[in-house]
Amino acid sequence: MDLTEKKISGEDIFDGVVLHVRKDTVELPDGNTSTREYIKHNGAVCVIPITDDGEVVLERQYRYAIGKVLTEIPAGKLEPGEDRLEAAKRELKEETGYVAGKMICIGEFYGSPALLEERVTMYLATELIKEERQLDEDEFLEVFTMPLDEAFERAMANEFDDAKTHLSILKAYIMLKK
Amino acid sequence: MDLTEKKISGEDIFDGVVLHVRKDTVELPDGNTSTREYIKHNGAVCVIPITDDGEVVLERQYRYAIGKVLTEIPAGKLEPGEDRLEAAKRELKEETGYVAGKMICIGEFYGSPALLEERVTMYLATELIKEERQLDEDEFLEVFTMPLDEAFERAMANEFDDAKTHLSILKAYIMLKK
Repeated sequence: MDLTEKKISGEDIFDGVVLHVRKDTVELPDGNTSTREYIKHNGAVCVIPITDDGEVVLERQYRYAIGKVLTEIPAGKLEPGEDRLEAAKRELKEETGYVAGKMICIGEFYGSPALLEERVTMYLATELIKEERQLDEDEFLEVFTMPLDEAFERAMANEFDDAKTHLSILKAYIMLKK
Repeated sequence: MDLTEKKISGEDIFDGVVLHVRKDTVELPDGNTSTREYIKHNGAVCVIPITDDGEVVLERQYRYAIGKVLTEIPAGKLEPGEDRLEAAKRELKEETGYVAGKMICIGEFYGSPALLEERVTMYLATELIKEERQLDEDEFLEVFTMPLDEAFERAMANEFDDAKTHLSILKAYIMLKK
């Protein structure tokens, strides 16, 4: 069965600084029509940095959309046309000050594929060297570290509620500890 | 340091069928102001169903926002006021026809906390009994099964690019196989 939905017409609802909202009329697989409201997004990257001592570098950051402080790994949106690995290196340096000797891709995900075009690529960063961080003007975050073993136990106990952090900790632990 | 951002004023940008977009002016931790564009969301649930034979029940579904068919576990939005566990049971039955003798919560996540209020609760469903599925009118999806061991290997090889599916497979495998 062809599950594809075909665009009939489209409408720009809102073009903001970070949000770009679209509403399309589509043809469903059975020939009927429906509407699809969704968010355009350039994509994002995240990095799980592991120090030579086996500590994960984490951040506490206030997230206005959900109204609370989340514990997360470093992450950020792609600049237009930016390479994903370069974006990951940039965000790691800006937010934590770390530069990685080694970075490998450990997967990708769509965080909310029914609504949001955003695709997030995950990197594991090791062989870390500490330099100065360079936060964006409106960015406020606290950096701290936690042993990877403890982070894994906390992830299994559901103590991380950010998708990229939850997932990257599990994958990094399975890859590095087995 | 208090990382909280305080709302100064707010504006409703768009109230659609599924998307509700807001734009607020906020006070940052340093006293400056900034704007925050974000999506209001009622929340969602997902279910990783495991048969008595150790197979994961999966779905192929076209996701218009990202323009491709994704392999996912059953999931759906909460109805207004709906209990999360009840919503998980409803979505499992509607999409796959399965009713679970046992359902436990295996965690929660925000898929895109900078933009989207949506909080997704994950359930592991076992002791499955097959009944009839009852899809929504504009829902088209194909249900299939895969051994949990194979799903885990594929997740580690980055073959699942949906966050809830990627994460639930890893957590279910670690919980059931250790």
